[in-house]
Amino acid sequence: MKTPFVKDLAAEQVITGFFLVHEKEIRNANNGKPYLRMELGDRSGTVEARMWDQFDGMAKGVSRDDFVKVQGRVEIYRNRPQLLLMQFRVARPEEIDLGDFLPHTKFDVELMYRELLGHAEGMQNPWLRQLVLKILCDAEVARRYKRAPAAKVMHHAYIGGLLEHVVGLCGLAKHIAVHYPELDVDLLLTAAMLHDLGKLDELCYERAIGYTVEGQLLGHIVMEVETVGQAIEGIVGFPQQLKTVVQHILISHHGEYEFGSPKLPMIREALAFHYLDDLDSKMAAVRAALAMDAGEEEWSAFSGALGRKFLRLEKYLAEEEKKAGTESKAAKE
Amino acid sequence: MKTPFVKDLAAEQVITGFFLVHEKEIRNANNGKPYLRMELGDRSGTVEARMWDQFDGMAKGVSRDDFVKVQGRVEIYRNRPQLLLMQFRVARPEEIDLGDFLPHTKFDVELMYRELLGHAEGMQNPWLRQLVLKILCDAEVARRYKRAPAAKVMHHAYIGGLLEHVVGLCGLAKHIAVHYPELDVDLLLTAAMLHDLGKLDELCYERAIGYTVEGQLLGHIVMEVETVGQAIEGIVGFPQQLKTVVQHILISHHGEYEFGSPKLPMIREALAFHYLDDLDSKMAAVRAALAMDAGEEEWSAFSGALGRKFLRLEKYLAEEEKKAGTESKAAKE
Amino acid sequence: MKTPFVKDLAAEQVITGFFLVHEKEIRNANNGKPYLRMELGDRSGTVEARMWDQFDGMAKGVSRDDFVKVQGRVEIYRNRPQLLLMQFRVARPEEIDLGDFLPHTKFDVELMYRELLGHAEGMQNPWLRQLVLKILCDAEVARRYKRAPAAKVMHHAYIGGLLEHVVGLCGLAKHIAVHYPELDVDLLLTAAMLHDLGKLDELCYERAIGYTVEGQLLGHIVMEVETVGQAIEGIVGFPQQLKTVVQHILISHHGEYEFGSPKLPMIREALAFHYLDDLDSKMAAVRAALAMDAGEEEWSAFSGALGRKFLRLEKYLAEEEKKAGTESKAAKE
Amino acid sequence: MKTPFVKDLAAEQVITGFFLVHEKEIRNANNGKPYLRMELGDRSGTVEARMWDQFDGMAKGVSRDDFVKVQGRVEIYRNRPQLLLMQFRVARPEEIDLGDFLPHTKFDVELMYRELLGHAEGMQNPWLRQLVLKILCDAEVARRYKRAPAAKVMHHAYIGGLLEHVVGLCGLAKHIAVHYPELDVDLLLTAAMLHDLGKLDELCYERAIGYTVEGQLLGHIVMEVETVGQAIEGIVGFPQQLKTVVQHILISHHGEYEFGSPKLPMIREALAFHYLDDLDSKMAAVRAALAMDAGEEEWSAFSGALGRKFLRLEKYLAEEEKKAGTESKAAKE
Amino acid sequence: MKTPFVKDLAAEQVITGFFLVHEKEIRNANNGKPYLRMELGDRSGTVEARMWDQFDGMAKGVSRDDFVKVQGRVEIYRNRPQLLLMQFRVARPEEIDLGDFLPHTKFDVELMYRELLGHAEGMQNPWLRQLVLKILCDAEVARRYKRAPAAKVMHHAYIGGLLEHVVGLCGLAKHIAVHYPELDVDLLLTAAMLHDLGKLDELCYERAIGYTVEGQLLGHIVMEVETVGQAIEGIVGFPQQLKTVVQHILISHHGEYEFGSPKLPMIREALAFHYLDDLDSKMAAVRAALAMDAGEEEWSAFSGALGRKFLRLEKYLAEEEKKAGTESKAAKE
Amino acid sequence: MKTPFVKDLAAEQVITGFFLVHEKEIRNANNGKPYLRMELGDRSGTVEARMWDQFDGMAKGVSRDDFVKVQGRVEIYRNRPQLLLMQFRVARPEEIDLGDFLPHTKFDVELMYRELLGHAEGMQNPWLRQLVLKILCDAEVARRYKRAPAAKVMHHAYIGGLLEHVVGLCGLAKHIAVHYPELDVDLLLTAAMLHDLGKLDELCYERAIGYTVEGQLLGHIVMEVETVGQAIEGIVGFPQQLKTVVQHILISHHGEYEFGSPKLPMIREALAFHYLDDLDSKMAAVRAALAMDAGEEEWSAFSGALGRKFLRLEKYLAEEEKKAGTESKAAKE
Repeated sequence: MKTPFVKDLAAEQVITGFFLVHEKEIRNANNGKPYLRMELGDRSGTVEARMWDQFDGMAKGVSRDDFVKVQGRVEIYRNRPQLLLMQFRVARPEEIDLGDFLPHTKFDVELMYRELLGHAEGMQNPWLRQLVLKILCDAEVARRYKRAPAAKVMHHAYIGGLLEHVVGLCGLAKHIAVHYPELDVDLLLTAAMLHDLGKLDELCYERAIGYTVEGQLLGHIVMEVETVGQAIEGIVGFPQQLKTVVQHILISHHGEYEFGSPKLPMIREALAFHYLDDLDSKMAAVRAALAMDAGEEEWSAFSGALGRKFLRLEKYLAEEEKKAGTESKAAKE
Repeated sequence: MKTPFVKDLAAEQVITGFFLVHEKEIRNANNGKPYLRMELGDRSGTVEARMWDQFDGMAKGVSRDDFVKVQGRVEIYRNRPQLLLMQFRVARPEEIDLGDFLPHTKFDVELMYRELLGHAEGMQNPWLRQLVLKILCDAEVARRYKRAPAAKVMHHAYIGGLLEHVVGLCGLAKHIAVHYPELDVDLLLTAAMLHDLGKLDELCYERAIGYTVEGQLLGHIVMEVETVGQAIEGIVGFPQQLKTVVQHILISHHGEYEFGSPKLPMIREALAFHYLDDLDSKMAAVRAALAMDAGEEEWSAFSGALGRKFLRLEKYLAEEEKKAGTESKAAKE
Repeated sequence: MKTPFVKDLAAEQVITGFFLVHEKEIRNANNGKPYLRMELGDRSGTVEARMWDQFDGMAKGVSRDDFVKVQGRVEIYRNRPQLLLMQFRVARPEEIDLGDFLPHTKFDVELMYRELLGHAEGMQNPWLRQLVLKILCDAEVARRYKRAPAAKVMHHAYIGGLLEHVVGLCGLAKHIAVHYPELDVDLLLTAAMLHDLGKLDELCYERAIGYTVEGQLLGHIVMEVETVGQAIEGIVGFPQQLKTVVQHILISHHGEYEFGSPKLPMIREALAFHYLDDLDSKMAAVRAALAMDAGEEEWSAFSGALGRKFLRLEKYLAEEEKKAGTESKAAKE
Repeated sequence: MKTPFVKDLAAEQVITGFFLVHEKEIRNANNGKPYLRMELGDRSGTVEARMWDQFDGMAKGVSRDDFVKVQGRVEIYRNRPQLLLMQFRVARPEEIDLGDFLPHTKFDVELMYRELLGHAEGMQNPWLRQLVLKILCDAEVARRYKRAPAAKVMHHAYIGGLLEHVVGLCGLAKHIAVHYPELDVDLLLTAAMLHDLGKLDELCYERAIGYTVEGQLLGHIVMEVETVGQAIEGIVGFPQQLKTVVQHILISHHGEYEFGSPKLPMIREALAFHYLDDLDSKMAAVRAALAMDAGEEEWSAFSGALGRKFLRLEKYLAEEEKKAGTESKAAKE
Repeated sequence: MKTPFVKDLAAEQVITGFFLVHEKEIRNANNGKPYLRMELGDRSGTVEARMWDQFDGMAKGVSRDDFVKVQGRVEIYRNRPQLLLMQFRVARPEEIDLGDFLPHTKFDVELMYRELLGHAEGMQNPWLRQLVLKILCDAEVARRYKRAPAAKVMHHAYIGGLLEHVVGLCGLAKHIAVHYPELDVDLLLTAAMLHDLGKLDELCYERAIGYTVEGQLLGHIVMEVETVGQAIEGIVGFPQQLKTVVQHILISHHGEYEFGSPKLPMIREALAFHYLDDLDSKMAAVRAALAMDAGEEEWSAFSGALGRKFLRLEKYLAEEEKKAGTESKAAKE
Repeated sequence: MKTPFVKDLAAEQVITGFFLVHEKEIRNANNGKPYLRMELGDRSGTVEARMWDQFDGMAKGVSRDDFVKVQGRVEIYRNRPQLLLMQFRVARPEEIDLGDFLPHTKFDVELMYRELLGHAEGMQNPWLRQLVLKILCDAEVARRYKRAPAAKVMHHAYIGGLLEHVVGLCGLAKHIAVHYPELDVDLLLTAAMLHDLGKLDELCYERAIGYTVEGQLLGHIVMEVETVGQAIEGIVGFPQQLKTVVQHILISHHGEYEFGSPKLPMIREALAFHYLDDLDSKMAAVRAALAMDAGEEEWSAFSGALGRKFLRLEKYLAEEEKKAGTESKAAKE
């Protein structure tokens, strides 16, 4: 693991370390002199860095999204640490452990992927099984599926987050299909496995989580409808109606036009899957909100994704017990 | 079972039978002469009835929501049957089987209620268990709970529908609590059992499904928040914070202000329960839509509750198979 | 041209003619006897038809969307003509002129298609020219493009309407590109030609205008994004970025999420094209509203597409002139 | 009155004074060393306070919402005063005058409460009079009613503000009932007195204005519907229908679902009262906006509650007079 | 008073009477023969009239909005009366009493107008007093002001309704200005008197209530802002700023953009007046809803203007008393 | 041209120059001492200025919107330049070139105005031609029309911007009228010339772009409807209906109530013009967004007016070519 992390930078330290370049620009100081300003980061946060002299040569070879090795001194500016650079260079690949730069699911991605394949192999419908296995066994898809986050900020926003979300949905789908026997579990599983496939390319997450230009122009729904369509076209004899059904479930899974679904769910499984996806995303968003502290004992941080904060139930109920304890003690005395 | 049902009335028949009075009024004919007009119904539909002469004495004793025994002749007016009354009187209670007048769940309400009590008795949290058992074991609550529909038109709109919905939610809650171990299953079960308790009094469903005046002025959410509050106040030592939590889950279960929830779910279980309740209602609404035929082979009737129609998946996929069958046969020939 | 048209049916006539079956069902009369009810139509309107006896054999061979030859008598029922069928059979293809059954653009579709190809051939960008020509020169596309309406009811809702709309947009695009030189006219033309390509399959318009099941489940935007994607994949060397740009313009052309665009226009040409498409659709909707009379001299019929009625400008201004004329005449006298 | 107030802190002063602890936390400086940071306040504003050394013992005994006596030096940091603490301790109750810490109505709360009781005693309807007097004469209710603000920020956001709002509404109700004789003035008065009763517990305002956890989870409407329901249950013979009417007026007084009313006003008095409440709140919000200066001579500060700024009418009209004066003088010369 | 009124037409009667022509058209019967169809009405309702033979000469001289004298026989068609015309001619002015054709305020318009002028003369601000008197004393304005309804359907939809609404608002304004001394009562009175002035020309109400073409194209707000502007320009020395203030109050009185106000109220009096106008309109709409019976004892008819029905409070509360009475009687026995 | 511009101020410089006073106030320092704070600006930006001693005499004569000549030293405060004033006085008119203080269209306003008059003179409708020429030839209108911006921030937000927008719309109108021959080009030209006439007085733009009080209270739509109405009233014989048509087009040109149009377009030309105006505004807003750099190579700055950012099409397509170039080079090697 790299040292130091941004969150550990202490004033007046002189440090040597590796960081990702989030932004890089040449600015003019108020006296008209140019200086180099970069925003450097790792998975623990970001820090501003400046270099005032003789940065021309070094700056030339470095671009946004490069990893750099820097030497500098930590100063405090407006109460926040800032790096005064002495020197820096592009890092060599072997010097970098990507895990230092992006937050990561706490589950084992290889295990999860195997679980996912298990769900796929257990499907009864031969066309759907063939379809999802064809896609999931593609080496490049698998490579990206094991890394992709489920979103930039809303939920499961970390490496492996998409896979965690999808595996969770497969389990949930099986529970629901037991409860509502009218639902076709294979369609639900197909939906779970493919509904965010477009995110593999909508997002970029090699070094930081962001959107690709294609992702911004098309969105994962349109991207995956084409990818899945192509995969289906490559399967001889795949029923045309079933293709339409699968594509409908993909494009309607956001449930509302305003969330980018060009069609509302008009198939029972499409409606049910929309609920499952929404529920799992929201449960993850609550989890993330509760994991953050905003200074109120009984409340989570405000969740932008949900537009509210959440009660820390145990804390709130415990207060009472504490009080009750005190009172019963008082009563005894 | 009564005969004839409204749906079986045939032109020119003279019939004797029992009906519920939905509307009753004296109108003036175009020639200024008063006549009696009633809307009569049973669980199969409604029919207009008129009486032109000497109805004064008979009409006096009959009001809306009375059951009547009528004798009349079926005429066709504007292509629909109409009853020309010869005589009628209020029916005696022992002449009426309520089941003839309202649609009914196809499940056994006594069995379902026992299942519900089983869920209640299995709860771990002593306060919540005591609360729900106190309410569910109240004889008047039990009597009404076994009859109440879940809604007038949206979903489970039949006698016993509420109980069917609630028992379904209990099962769903247990599935979900297995999948998301962070959820407190007892809170979910309490929510399932009490979230529509106010509907016992918001709706009237002795003879037809409608809203009481109190129901229209207060709504089931406000009604049950008070009822449950009173039940809690009667339990010595019930923790005050837990009362607030339960009431919050009740008032937020519609999930949005515009659906009449004065607060958004701000507790994890409240959010999850809102999804379960919504999902189960929608699945029932889809079921109801698919059960109706609107003349399009591949599509259900339009669902007012969902604002769309639904694909009959099997029909649609079967077409292909048929076609495929034909084609492969053609190919062989 | 066929005789008689529905709008010409007169009471007590006995007629022989050809109609399209819009609906067909067996119903029970009030006396319990089954009868056959069909809705028959041609481009002038629809009429209800009934047959009371011995229809079994004839009815068996006839389905919705068949053309039938019928013999019957026109009766007036509830002030509207109704056909009392004596006999009917499925029509032979050579007996039918489709033009009798669907409204049609008043322009020559062959001429318009040639004009469209002319616009395509004049494009400067070799990739875009190759793309649109590849699609437009496909025989099946051309055949359907010359028939498809632009919508079921909103605008250009007649055979050839889509082509009329698209050719109009090409002309409009060229005008606009002269006015705003920053716009790439080839992208605008490509957008015009391909933005409703999915409607060729979203709608069915062989005998009446409706939606296909695929059209309802996917919508023309998703359908064409895949079709165009496939066409591009078949062109060796087509730049990947340009593909994304074309697809973005297609999916964003409705301009708002609530109108089914999964992305808002984020390219200058996409935004401009959205305005052109909207303007041309609205101008056609106004034209259609003004063509209908709703009994108010100065106002058009209410346009459902636009949510309002439109002033008949000439009528309104002429009133004044009339009045002015009268007054000046009065003044002279 | 305490000295100094936050708004009077001047650079380089060494002061001793009393403040309320709004926030308290231990943070790590950039050099890793922990320091104490508190936000201290009184009714004139808030100030940041820091202590760098040996704060452990003192900090332990102090929590948010405590009053503290501090000794410190005022420094200017980023152009704002900051307190560098030398020492502090929890204040003794007798050292604190709560009026120093919260803004206060300029009216006499005892007088206003007597006026309120006068309105109550003058009511004709014996049930409603008994109900409101029972509630208003409860010692704990009276104590809180004389302190509660009407809101945290929107209007009447100061100690005694709720009472001021309610007494104003009683007067307004009487005016309106004279103008619209169809309105039942006793229902309007009851609405005025009870519609915000839940705010006594929804808000906390002992030391600063905020929301209680119960208030956030339930809201004042739900809280008061239960409280008032309990009070009614305690009055023997109180008509059940009248209870429903009163509760309906309470729950519908926000007038719209989106403002947290689970029912729309469906009783004439409920609708009228909603308008009165809204009008009085808005008039107070305008008053507050006009009391603040945002640097534009003719305009008030922007009112968040109203989403706009307001014209200073006199200023604007006076300009003209000034100008007119100048001009008429000029004309004379 | 005319006889018979539409509501009194009885089957098989032969009648002679006066009616207003709402619609007139020549239609083709199903047998192709033309016939005359008119919709005739008076203040009690409308009736369809037909003439099958020799109507050419008579029909030529008659247009929509003419009064006609007709002779005909009342037939019942689809359960509603219909007039079979024998002959008719345009009525002579002296034969017509307009009061028979339009509903009318129950107050004396001359008295109300004098009250209005009294309010105007009592104003302190000389400019505003001069302005409103100039307008209200204009003979043509006065003539129309005494007739105009306040709306076509929403509230005060009858002859003299506007005046009733405005006089009511003047009284309300004075009440409010006593309660909120910060409000300038003269501005409120000016607003009351002029805020619907444009309705004198937006609506037509000589024979039936409708919209003029100008009214539909411009609306009363724009119409009155110009009229009032012109009146002000004709007053020498009227302060320019005060003109802007008056016009602002006029254009903002609907309170929201979506209700056609191009500006939100940004002056205290404009905001207050918006509330008064809204309250008075809604109170009138409730009154109208309660005056209509929709067959539910405790509820008014559904009010389209308010989107709900209203409780008949006295009926609802009386039930209880009745019940209570019965019970107490029972108790005694 | 003035020196220095705000954007060129460098630390530690002592400068003498001319600036516009945006804000001026006396504040109390933290030590209680009053100081002068002004915001000074020119077309390149704004800078904060302070004066700590002996500013009383100088400050008295200076107000917001004055031009001042100042002498001061540039200091850096919180990383931004700040002016420490030594002395200042009001500038003499002859010392100021207004072009230094406001951004300006890059086109020649005199040429554009002549082009506008050319469009006006070419109109066929004598009444409309007379109307627009009467207005455009008014010297004061012409003077302001040559300066006014089209908006404060949304589009064409610079001196001469309104004229640029209007001349553009005239050209666009002529293009469209060729394409849609049903449109009356003279009405479109009249709309173009007069639709923002009210902005001449709604905005103030002598020294900086802002809103006048009248502009905020009435808005340009209401202002111009009155101005144009007055101009029409001055033309003897101008048809009343045509006046209504012109005013309708003016008030409906925003197209939606929520954008301040009190009526929706109900005339064909009104609808078409709304689209042209909207299109031209949006094209200008895109142009402005693309002219700003927000640090992402392929994307424009975020446009507040459009709620999104825009793709830099050439950059994005060029990447591919670059890549393609590299690849083909690689392929050759």
